[in-house]
Amino acid sequence: MKRITLLLIAVAALVGIVASIAPTRGRADGEAAPTFVTQIPPGYRDWRLISVAHEEGNLNSFAAVLGNDVAVKAYREGTLPFPDGTIIAALHYSHVSSAENDKVFGRAQSFVPGSPTNIQFMVKDSTKYAATGGWGFAHFKDGKPGDEAFMKTCFPCHEKAQGSDLVFTHYAP
Amino acid sequence: MKRITLLLIAVAALVGIVASIAPTRGRADGEAAPTFVTQIPPGYRDWRLISVAHEEGNLNSFAAVLGNDVAVKAYREGTLPFPDGTIIAALHYSHVSSAENDKVFGRAQSFVPGSPTNIQFMVKDSTKYAATGGWGFAHFKDGKPGDEAFMKTCFPCHEKAQGSDLVFTHYAP
Repeated sequence: MKRITLLLIAVAALVGIVASIAPTRGRADGEAAPTFVTQIPPGYRDWRLISVAHEEGNLNSFAAVLGNDVAVKAYREGTLPFPDGTIIAALHYSHVSSAENDKVFGRAQSFVPGSPTNIQFMVKDSTKYAATGGWGFAHFKDGKPGDEAFMKTCFPCHEKAQGSDLVFTHYAP
Repeated sequence: MKRITLLLIAVAALVGIVASIAPTRGRADGEAAPTFVTQIPPGYRDWRLISVAHEEGNLNSFAAVLGNDVAVKAYREGTLPFPDGTIIAALHYSHVSSAENDKVFGRAQSFVPGSPTNIQFMVKDSTKYAATGGWGFAHFKDGKPGDEAFMKTCFPCHEKAQGSDLVFTHYAP
């Protein structure tokens, strides 16, 4: 029964993803509007681990990077570019010291995830997202997608990671 | 077919785990020897994410903490103590700066997992591991289990986390 439930969840997830990448309306000038992912891919919190990350500075973030089955398979087999259907999720939290752990260790050394800050996704569809290297970008803060001005900043930065199909995160064994 | 394969993997994992927690021989003085987990639970790299962690100082480590299905269910439902069958895995890596990412960001701020340093597990079996709070501890470096002297250091430290059934890691949403 559990397997069937999982299958149903997977199908529901797929339907959700397909729905979330429906085309945006064309612009009056005939040029297609930049397309971003505006719905959270269902089930992402159950995906497998790709790696972890930490950014200092203004971001001060702690990340867990997860991937759907297509993503994890591609990472493990070293497939580049990532195939269509790949979805990579970055779960970001604030990077906070753990007074609770430090007390046990007897010194300040332990950092853990604080409040969730945002969740970001990269969805590979080489046709739909051809204008942004085949990747649809997504950013959700408190469940709400980033606005267009913000979303336009994703691609120019990721574009610099040419050697790894615009993906910064490497697979942690 | 894929579901059946997964089921077979799960069964194989279970058999492996049961094999790995077979009792150690009793001591000549009649006192049971401390029991540690000496085999890596199969399939752990496919388990779901519990959280991430970072230790500064001598450890300088980056961790991804994963859990088997029993563990993740218990975490999500807030079940304490953790039920028998719970296995928590801590995948440790060195915490290194990423020159590759820093170049893109234009400043030193990015940290990623370096080489794997060790993998640790906590296996809940309230009968078998009654002497150590119901938890069997495991530590593997390059695939080899820690020696008894090292393994004896696990419980005294974890014992201090009484409020969370000897587990330091909290669930990251």
